Amino acid sequence: MFMPVGTQGTVKGISPQELLEIGSQMILGNTYHLMLRPGEQLVAAHGGLPGFTAYPGPFLTDSGGFQVMSLGHMRKINEEGVTFKSHLDGSMVLLTPERSIGVQEALGADVIMAFDECPPYPAERDYIQQSLERTIRWLERCQAVKSREDQALFAIVQGGVHQDLRQHSLDLTLPFGTPGFAIGGLAVGESKEEMYPAVAFTAARLPEGKPRYLMGVGHPEDLIAGIALGVDMFDCVYPTRTGRFGYALTDEGRLNLNSSAPRRQLEPIDPECDCYACRHYTRAYLAHLLRAEEMLAPRMLSLHNLRYLHRLVERASRAIAAGTFQQWAQVWAERYFQQAVPAWFQAALAAGASVEAPA
Amino acid sequence: MFMPVGTQGTVKGISPQELLEIGSQMILGNTYHLMLRPGEQLVAAHGGLPGFTAYPGPFLTDSGGFQVMSLGHMRKINEEGVTFKSHLDGSMVLLTPERSIGVQEALGADVIMAFDECPPYPAERDYIQQSLERTIRWLERCQAVKSREDQALFAIVQGGVHQDLRQHSLDLTLPFGTPGFAIGGLAVGESKEEMYPAVAFTAARLPEGKPRYLMGVGHPEDLIAGIALGVDMFDCVYPTRTGRFGYALTDEGRLNLNSSAPRRQLEPIDPECDCYACRHYTRAYLAHLLRAEEMLAPRMLSLHNLRYLHRLVERASRAIAAGTFQQWAQVWAERYFQQAVPAWFQAALAAGASVEAPA
Repeated sequence: MFMPVGTQGTVKGISPQELLEIGSQMILGNTYHLMLRPGEQLVAAHGGLPGFTAYPGPFLTDSGGFQVMSLGHMRKINEEGVTFKSHLDGSMVLLTPERSIGVQEALGADVIMAFDECPPYPAERDYIQQSLERTIRWLERCQAVKSREDQALFAIVQGGVHQDLRQHSLDLTLPFGTPGFAIGGLAVGESKEEMYPAVAFTAARLPEGKPRYLMGVGHPEDLIAGIALGVDMFDCVYPTRTGRFGYALTDEGRLNLNSSAPRRQLEPIDPECDCYACRHYTRAYLAHLLRAEEMLAPRMLSLHNLRYLHRLVERASRAIAAGTFQQWAQVWAERYFQQAVPAWFQAALAAGASVEAPA
Repeated sequence: MFMPVGTQGTVKGISPQELLEIGSQMILGNTYHLMLRPGEQLVAAHGGLPGFTAYPGPFLTDSGGFQVMSLGHMRKINEEGVTFKSHLDGSMVLLTPERSIGVQEALGADVIMAFDECPPYPAERDYIQQSLERTIRWLERCQAVKSREDQALFAIVQGGVHQDLRQHSLDLTLPFGTPGFAIGGLAVGESKEEMYPAVAFTAARLPEGKPRYLMGVGHPEDLIAGIALGVDMFDCVYPTRTGRFGYALTDEGRLNLNSSAPRRQLEPIDPECDCYACRHYTRAYLAHLLRAEEMLAPRMLSLHNLRYLHRLVERASRAIAAGTFQQWAQVWAERYFQQAVPAWFQAALAAGASVEAPA
């Protein structure tokens, strides 16, 4: 499944009713953003994220670790946790494994994530090793302090793009036996040629019967490559962000509604799509809304892009069930990449063929 | 009825499905904006505004006259029409009665408006008189050039805040026998104490059996005062604009969700409201969205405010049907104005009592 990202307690511009209509299953909430504003206690006073956001659930919350690294200023990492300066008011905040779990228990998601460090790319090998070992000690503290029985804590495997460090992280993480495992530390700036071997290596060594979650990914091609390699869960701000910029996802690649051609096109973004925008609007109308800076444009393009990714996963799932995933993915890719399917994608599909479960 | 304003082919942030759900009847489109961008021919290629915007109708379009006055630069008015500089690309555009009707026929609304001049406030008496007489000659040209039988052309009564000039305009306009009449030239800067006597005077002299449309109005109190005086139709950007700024309309006045108190309030904007926002969200959640500058905030507040005005008109209509409008309006006003009902509102209600049709 692809999880829409509701950073600040809302998937930007989209109502819960619309999320249900387009087939969203689980929504991601951000611990870092919500603890800083409005504060987890206000969310808890609403009975957690479902009451606060009116999305009836389920939810997953991240641990805050990734945002501390990408948004926090003046951060200092030590064994205790991470001290950082809030991007909102400049106050100094300490986020620890204990605090992360406390916040996530207050937010009340169904799946919560262990507090980890996601090292930047590139990073020194030695640093990645020290960091992943500390992340394991933090995982231990997360498990120890976790008090709600109705929340599933997922561990996160780190190790950058290095196979031996991924193996080291797996060796230390798998014994915790958490109900799901995430592949972290990727899609942070490395090339696809570096990223996918790391995904393939890690996903193949995670337990068959538990969800594998590739964090912060991705684009349509990333979903297909990830699914080929055995990934079950994805999240990314990409569909809503690129929609706000005027881009629409289709099987033929990304359509730029800011360009001049769509202004005269009386067909929908995608005649095969069943979203509200495709059922009601022409490209010309949506291009007009964009030029006129009308709010309905980012709203409708976000909705379409989310529906595109949900539908893509649904189609992949049907192909897997029918035992035709490899062929389906190949046909999809040739159309999507306009005949120029990149080597990394072909390699991911090929690597996936060997791990694909028999129908 | 209150008509939401869809200036550029969309009621800002709101989908057609939502408009139907909240009880919108007719949507207003702007000739000036749509002729400049995307151009009326593109709208016509969609089969008119219903096809372009996906709102199944009905629509009303204004004549462009008001926007030429308020948005066009370097405008020159003469007998032929108005020449102005486009606010979009600086090109010089000539809008005439013939061109206005041509554009409105291409846009395909059910109700179209005669091309008029709305003089600024304040304006010289002499200028208002010359202007209203020219508006009559323009009305004649509009009627002469109008070719579609499926569109109703409404005339607009001008005359500023001067009773004798209103009478003069009425004398010249009524003989045209158009299927509806608008009261124009008000809500342009004059005080309520000047505006409402002009509304009362004009509305009372318009035919009983045809719709009376008070253009560009208004706030909740304006709808009630206008209804008291016999007005049938209103339009205004106020509910969506004030919603985008974080204000919610309620029977107890305007609620500022930017202030600090709502941030902790776990009740809806208005427990009596049946809009999506009031059925799903607390004030605290909406206040959070506003502070976080999330798109869902202006969307939901616009939706609520439109529903508030639609519901207000529905309540007024029920009270009229029950013969209790005066009492109902008095009770509403005492709550809305927090006991300090202004004299202009009381005067409008009192003036309305004498013209109110028996139940």
